Amino acid sequence: MGEEAQQRTGADQLVATLAEHGVSACFANPGTSEMHLVQALDREPRIRSVLCLFEGVATGAADGFARMAGKPAMTLLHLGPGYANGAANIHNARRAYAPMVNVVGDHATYHRTLDAPLASDIETLVKPNSRWVGVVEQASEAGEKAAKAFIETMGPPAGPVSLILPADSAWNPAGPDAPRVTLPGLSLVDPTQIEAVADAIALAQKPVILVNGPALYDEAALTTMSRLKAAGVRVLCDTFVGRLARGAGRFGPDRMAYFAEMAMEDLAGVDLMILAGTGVPCAFFAYPGKPSILVPEGCTTIELSARSEDTAEALAALADALDAPDAPPAPTRTQHPMPTGKITPYTCATSLARHMPDQAIISDDAVTAGLPHFMATQTAAPHDWLFLTGGAIGQGLPLAVGAAVAAPDRKVIALTGDGAGMYTLQALWTMARERLPIVTVVFANRSYRILNIEMGRTGAGQPGPAASSMLSLDKPALDWVKLAEGQGVEAVSCDTAEAFDTALARAIAADVPVLIEAVM
Amino acid sequence: MGEEAQQRTGADQLVATLAEHGVSACFANPGTSEMHLVQALDREPRIRSVLCLFEGVATGAADGFARMAGKPAMTLLHLGPGYANGAANIHNARRAYAPMVNVVGDHATYHRTLDAPLASDIETLVKPNSRWVGVVEQASEAGEKAAKAFIETMGPPAGPVSLILPADSAWNPAGPDAPRVTLPGLSLVDPTQIEAVADAIALAQKPVILVNGPALYDEAALTTMSRLKAAGVRVLCDTFVGRLARGAGRFGPDRMAYFAEMAMEDLAGVDLMILAGTGVPCAFFAYPGKPSILVPEGCTTIELSARSEDTAEALAALADALDAPDAPPAPTRTQHPMPTGKITPYTCATSLARHMPDQAIISDDAVTAGLPHFMATQTAAPHDWLFLTGGAIGQGLPLAVGAAVAAPDRKVIALTGDGAGMYTLQALWTMARERLPIVTVVFANRSYRILNIEMGRTGAGQPGPAASSMLSLDKPALDWVKLAEGQGVEAVSCDTAEAFDTALARAIAADVPVLIEAVM
Repeated sequence: MGEEAQQRTGADQLVATLAEHGVSACFANPGTSEMHLVQALDREPRIRSVLCLFEGVATGAADGFARMAGKPAMTLLHLGPGYANGAANIHNARRAYAPMVNVVGDHATYHRTLDAPLASDIETLVKPNSRWVGVVEQASEAGEKAAKAFIETMGPPAGPVSLILPADSAWNPAGPDAPRVTLPGLSLVDPTQIEAVADAIALAQKPVILVNGPALYDEAALTTMSRLKAAGVRVLCDTFVGRLARGAGRFGPDRMAYFAEMAMEDLAGVDLMILAGTGVPCAFFAYPGKPSILVPEGCTTIELSARSEDTAEALAALADALDAPDAPPAPTRTQHPMPTGKITPYTCATSLARHMPDQAIISDDAVTAGLPHFMATQTAAPHDWLFLTGGAIGQGLPLAVGAAVAAPDRKVIALTGDGAGMYTLQALWTMARERLPIVTVVFANRSYRILNIEMGRTGAGQPGPAASSMLSLDKPALDWVKLAEGQGVEAVSCDTAEAFDTALARAIAADVPVLIEAVM
Repeated sequence: MGEEAQQRTGADQLVATLAEHGVSACFANPGTSEMHLVQALDREPRIRSVLCLFEGVATGAADGFARMAGKPAMTLLHLGPGYANGAANIHNARRAYAPMVNVVGDHATYHRTLDAPLASDIETLVKPNSRWVGVVEQASEAGEKAAKAFIETMGPPAGPVSLILPADSAWNPAGPDAPRVTLPGLSLVDPTQIEAVADAIALAQKPVILVNGPALYDEAALTTMSRLKAAGVRVLCDTFVGRLARGAGRFGPDRMAYFAEMAMEDLAGVDLMILAGTGVPCAFFAYPGKPSILVPEGCTTIELSARSEDTAEALAALADALDAPDAPPAPTRTQHPMPTGKITPYTCATSLARHMPDQAIISDDAVTAGLPHFMATQTAAPHDWLFLTGGAIGQGLPLAVGAAVAAPDRKVIALTGDGAGMYTLQALWTMARERLPIVTVVFANRSYRILNIEMGRTGAGQPGPAASSMLSLDKPALDWVKLAEGQGVEAVSCDTAEAFDTALARAIAADVPVLIEAVM
């Protein structure tokens, strides 16, 4: 009796070790080489398995989960091509400093060299977007490698890691369990560095501080930023950050402008730039004859804290060193009348500001339509804003899936362009299947609008017929109502400001996913 | 006058050089860093630019184009994430030995090191799926590097290459044009090797020859294979090949079985395996306790021709050396009655065999439903069959797009599973936009059916509730009619054999793309 019990496999141990360290979600698109992992998930009640019909959905969801939960999800990906399909959103996660354990199934160790159809050089493929890469060369090390993957993904700074599991390491018997690892936590900034920054501020005419990292969604740190501003230091954050807590009652740092020339105009006269949890700012793209590094001539840069350090603490110490005043009262919530007339990104933004519930989570992959929404909601109900961090469009809907799994009591609203939405529209199916009551808004301008703007800016001139066709999504127009309904998601199309306002209020009140197509 | 004419850029020269070498199609998903490439395409009438809403569509289309045209298309991809989105179908193209020039836009050379949001290590990312990687470090080498990319992609054997174009190399003035390159062509097999193979056959009890490469769609080579069979050498091809010309009037080689144990049973007693344009066969996946190398014990392997050599010529020389008889008459076309009753893969396959027009092109990404169609069409009208070569599902619809662009006078029929189809469903939009009269058949079994089979085979046991859920695509069921109509493609759903038969005949007759959902 009991001797005949099923032997614990490497896959079982890998999954259990991650669960032991708090991993509670797996976003998966499995294949034959991952069948033992799938079975192991069956035996692990601490992990919620979520099927995604494309790997870019799985990895984007893991990113959204991590941004809201502060801990990694695991993904389950099918060899090199499965990883590749998810790599764009892993790139975005890397830029968000989001932890994520990408478990990539591989051929059995003895099968890897046979050049089977699905064989590829996975270790090389994963390298550009992995903080750490581990291969479970034998089942006996599955626990140890999984624990290592967990500690490595948490950083600091956090970021995606890759754990490659050959099929025989999944199906062979596991070794002894690995001891549970303890996370190192953020390092404290040296007090002499705080003093150096305070001294530099005392000498500066026009100092700014540029912030990124967890301080941007730490209530105390936001209050500290308000104190710094009151002490004469303008507070900015990077243009695209993983998560920003904002809305009524909170201090809102200014955002670096997207376009280099606008950023430089905004920073004119700045003679000191303090970097807190971030690097020297640069333009998103290079343009002929325009600056790439966004630091005014003659401006000194000084680091307050590295990404691996405790920026919130460093900001507090700096405020104290400057003898900064108490934070002034944060702005209260603004009320807006119902917008009317032609639908535009601005009317939609007003509707969002009107109807967003407390503690909403906004996943913004709306490219040109995103900024008006960001502006309009500065003093809306308190919320978290999740940006497209790595410029790889197709993040918005998957990120919303993960955020909704991480925060089931909060309303998640995904804003996407039609171009961006098409990259990973399969996320809608997972929303329906998991009954995640996400509101998806698609701004259907029927073009890669940003590229129409960028073409002129890059000096490429006016688009001719072939070029125009490459920037346009009409002919045929996408019908997002059908694309959503085809995946089991309720949907409505709006072409007036009033209709959108009503539809948005209804969608937010619904307990199922709803998509709204805003035809511009 | 004239002095003010627009300066020719590196992007112009890159595009013109590819056009000069016969590249006539570009499957593109551009971004800001590719705006000068887009403008260059505007000025190059020899290249048809086709917009794809996801990069996996672009790369799969380039693969399908190459398989039918015998020459590369170019793709236009946006930095590392754009390449990554297309990498799974580049993997498939690598396994199909299909030429393809992937032009990857990158940040300007002076911007690459600034760690901008879209920066990544593109050279490492592209390596696993590139025969060759080139970076245009300055505009003056754009022509030379493009010519090199062309020669490298053609091999032999052919395969995808990566040409990375930093934005400043795109926008700066071009240097002198590169001379046009000449392709080396296939090498001839040494006559002593032909003799050695003939001698080995003379001594063998049960010889087989395993073939891959262009010989499989060369009419003369197929006839030669028939002669070899008549001389007592069984002719097989690899399970998943890039292209196979078949149907009535043609000799059909046997296919290696997908499942290792079936392949080994099929090869029982074989004492000589001749490899013609391929390597030692291996199982698609490893399974506990099952063979990975598909060569019976005691069987000798001998190479007739390498992939870089002229297999068609080598087969002819071998047939002559064996004094093989003339080829017996090939089977004539079989007529089938209309199938009736419940719809199954078998009734659909009969309908396909009934209605396929002469010279149809079949793009097969139908996983479990594919085999019955392959079997039923052995003696249907002559056609080309394009297989899923690298196991990365999501190839079928994109491949059909490229095949239809390459062969506008032939009917292209894409067979896909619902699981596979969801990976790259954005291909439907390109079909509508380009008015490619492709027939897409989706076998909607509402599961990853193959995984239900594979789970048992891998010894992972019976799936529990979580595992079952990971293999199933119901809850909610996908509605492929809406998914197609949402992208401008006509669609119909069928759940009887008769309805499918009628719908297929109509779709084949249409001059616009049509999707048929076969609900199983």
